[in-house]
Amino acid sequence: MSIVRHDSSAILSQAVEHGGTVYLAGVVAKNLDADVKGQTKEILNEIDRLLAKCGSGKAKVLQAQIWVTDIRNRASMNDIWTAWTEGKNLPARACVEAKLADPRALVEIMVIAAK
Amino acid sequence: MSIVRHDSSAILSQAVEHGGTVYLAGVVAKNLDADVKGQTKEILNEIDRLLAKCGSGKAKVLQAQIWVTDIRNRASMNDIWTAWTEGKNLPARACVEAKLADPRALVEIMVIAAK
Amino acid sequence: MSIVRHDSSAILSQAVEHGGTVYLAGVVAKNLDADVKGQTKEILNEIDRLLAKCGSGKAKVLQAQIWVTDIRNRASMNDIWTAWTEGKNLPARACVEAKLADPRALVEIMVIAAK
Repeated sequence: MSIVRHDSSAILSQAVEHGGTVYLAGVVAKNLDADVKGQTKEILNEIDRLLAKCGSGKAKVLQAQIWVTDIRNRASMNDIWTAWTEGKNLPARACVEAKLADPRALVEIMVIAAK
Repeated sequence: MSIVRHDSSAILSQAVEHGGTVYLAGVVAKNLDADVKGQTKEILNEIDRLLAKCGSGKAKVLQAQIWVTDIRNRASMNDIWTAWTEGKNLPARACVEAKLADPRALVEIMVIAAK
Repeated sequence: MSIVRHDSSAILSQAVEHGGTVYLAGVVAKNLDADVKGQTKEILNEIDRLLAKCGSGKAKVLQAQIWVTDIRNRASMNDIWTAWTEGKNLPARACVEAKLADPRALVEIMVIAAK
């Protein structure tokens, strides 16, 4: 099975395809002035873009890992998450609190999807 | 390869099958009055239940991620983990400290397994 | 698809092969007197060793999860990471802060790779 890598920076690839599985990097927002909801929206848009690039999409997400820098922001993140998923084709998921690379980033989401 | 999802709530599926691989959600105990050992026991019982639903089982776990809210509880969690695994068919594993969604949850475990 | 497990201890296997995919355990340094760069070097050497054992290698890493106990150490870890990857075949990656099992461990890295 070949490996296809997309959008590689100096340290990581934003998406890696292998067989029928797609691994995305942990995505954070670029607009870090946005609040949790704004950052989550931007992250999920970027995940849509990356999945499309791999011939996948949000209906095919298998696992999601979510880090929030303050666990009290989970509910706000979930509001945007629920609007995005529309309650359909929901992945296995874990959401825990962790400090992230940029102190202004409030959310980071990393998914594994099917092609 | 088709995707089969089990026990979906508003935000996640407790188990997702894809090809020969099963992704479970991060599992926490329902009885949050239990101590670390009690919570870990309940979590591993639930993982047994979910894996069985997918035609898998504890002998087929490939990777486990474990979060404890206090890293000093790792030894107590490990006691129950070791009783569960019986030292056989051990998965790759990482265990780190993180704050979880419910402040009374002391452990969360998320696994990937083979069918 | 058969499951092959390598270097099992009492609680985990350092590497698990399933089909075309390899799951490594979260690796920490053995020499915990080393600084972040030294620990990261030792971890990546061990990952090389484990991947080789599975018929894989650093050019085939699909996903990497990195935990640092102080997010300010991310840049130092990245220096060693970049030397190791040589900017080629980069995996999807997430790096967050978390307390680890041994208080002297500064970095832990867990990867999924292709065979």
